[in-house]
Amino acid sequence: MGEFDLIERYFKRPAKRAVLGIGDDCALLQPPPGSHMAISSDMLVEGRHFFADVDPRTLGHKALAVNLSDLAACGAKPLAFTLALALPKIDEAWLAGFSQGLFALADQHGCELIGGDTTRGPLNICITVFGSVPAPAGKSQALLRSGAQPGDDIYVSGHLGDARLALDALRGKFHLPPALLQSARQRLEEPSPRIALGLALRGLASAAMDLSDGLVGDIQHLLKASQVGATIHTASALDRLAARKHAEWPNAGINDEAALTCVLSGGDDYELLFTAPPSTAAALQVAARQSATPIHCIGRINAAPGLQLLDENGVELPMHFTSFDHFS
Amino acid sequence: MGEFDLIERYFKRPAKRAVLGIGDDCALLQPPPGSHMAISSDMLVEGRHFFADVDPRTLGHKALAVNLSDLAACGAKPLAFTLALALPKIDEAWLAGFSQGLFALADQHGCELIGGDTTRGPLNICITVFGSVPAPAGKSQALLRSGAQPGDDIYVSGHLGDARLALDALRGKFHLPPALLQSARQRLEEPSPRIALGLALRGLASAAMDLSDGLVGDIQHLLKASQVGATIHTASALDRLAARKHAEWPNAGINDEAALTCVLSGGDDYELLFTAPPSTAAALQVAARQSATPIHCIGRINAAPGLQLLDENGVELPMHFTSFDHFS
Repeated sequence: MGEFDLIERYFKRPAKRAVLGIGDDCALLQPPPGSHMAISSDMLVEGRHFFADVDPRTLGHKALAVNLSDLAACGAKPLAFTLALALPKIDEAWLAGFSQGLFALADQHGCELIGGDTTRGPLNICITVFGSVPAPAGKSQALLRSGAQPGDDIYVSGHLGDARLALDALRGKFHLPPALLQSARQRLEEPSPRIALGLALRGLASAAMDLSDGLVGDIQHLLKASQVGATIHTASALDRLAARKHAEWPNAGINDEAALTCVLSGGDDYELLFTAPPSTAAALQVAARQSATPIHCIGRINAAPGLQLLDENGVELPMHFTSFDHFS
Repeated sequence: MGEFDLIERYFKRPAKRAVLGIGDDCALLQPPPGSHMAISSDMLVEGRHFFADVDPRTLGHKALAVNLSDLAACGAKPLAFTLALALPKIDEAWLAGFSQGLFALADQHGCELIGGDTTRGPLNICITVFGSVPAPAGKSQALLRSGAQPGDDIYVSGHLGDARLALDALRGKFHLPPALLQSARQRLEEPSPRIALGLALRGLASAAMDLSDGLVGDIQHLLKASQVGATIHTASALDRLAARKHAEWPNAGINDEAALTCVLSGGDDYELLFTAPPSTAAALQVAARQSATPIHCIGRINAAPGLQLLDENGVELPMHFTSFDHFS
């Protein structure tokens, strides 16, 4: 099978919303009038972002999910994506699984594959995703990292740290009971981009970003962009580790320190971190219900720079929690 | 140096035309009102698309050039691009050269880097490029592969086959005199995307595409999309090999058969192939002059399907010229 047969068989589907889809030199997209186009790109490399033996279906899901998560963080509505794929060889079973996982998530969000590239090389998946954000009179309604104000509450969606717990278990650092590993592993391999919440937060959140490298590292980008500081209540954050509510947790033998490391410097969460003034608290709960996405307040924005971690007694924790960096 | 310092030092420049550039979860782009967004993505892998020891400056140029060439083929005006980069390690001299070559070409075409990704992994460069095409009343003026009509002339821009000649020489298949190798090598390593010509061809060309995998293979995609056939005059095509005009050519010892292979199945030309009715011939020459890009008629579109190669005596050549396919 050649390059063009591969595209034809596994990736080419008739364009529904794009003006022109796969098959020409460029795809053509018509953004809704009066909107801005939100664009993000993520590259996934074997051995760094996923294990070589990962189920290709979940890999197809995740490769798109991490990109959609960036659209969610901006409050953008998904429109389309391109896929560039380097493959060491043509493996039809792998391609079938990968494209199945990819398209299942794409269809769920009305996000259309419009083009890309295929080549031979060490396995590498690069997706670029396009969404739209209303921009009445040229003023974008996108959620940015730069709008947090002193006094704003800090929220996270869903759960934190379970992906890292699964990763550490798969690497042999922890031994998790099977049912607990399975549920944590699903968070690692099939994250749910918080698109509906991102849309519902437009006009409410003062700043937002997605959590991909770990809470403590990620939030510092938001603090820097907004020129503010923050206090995080680590007990509230720790409470977001879904594994702690699992029936098998008491048998996992993981202490709070290790659990907190998963939550604070875990990475791969793909939840939204956002800030909003306390006056919006009731409206935020409505947005959370409408988008069927739980949200939780874990701290507050300060005027003074710096990130402060407080335990349940209000005692400051040492800042030894780091974030994932591909080159550190 | 970490991931974020790397971006800051080598790739982050203030957004000039984009609403929002590098540094948030998404970039924001505002396409001109009444236009369609043209999008293309190309992935370059070490060992397949470039030699490991290639000058990083020319690699930065080429990685963007092959993407801009797709915009040219659609008659799109470049706006912006994203860059996803997997690097085996941080090599500051390499990054400085790469970003210099990249930005020099980007600035030449007013095309802005708005976002992307960096990760560790086998060297892989994935660029996604965005351009605009006027679409008055929603009708796109993009040049497509599907518009060729029987009787149309077939044109190519610039030169064909020199990139392949250089590649074969670098691989040791040919021995080329130094000055000849140098000029051919520039075609391989620093192709010039035909943006100005693409813009000038709007409303004139009936179909267009860029030549990346070799004339004989590439044109068949255009013929299939347009449901037509074609006759190519191989002597006219052979005349497009710039090396044949070089003072050192007589010392190169390359026969016409080998030269024709470079021209017909060479690849890496990044010239435009386009079709137009004979009535536009004079207007095309004006477009060529205005865009400072030579164009040459090399054949004609037929109603009957199939590709016919005729030598200078009108004798049909056997179709043993193939195209580059990453998986064949």
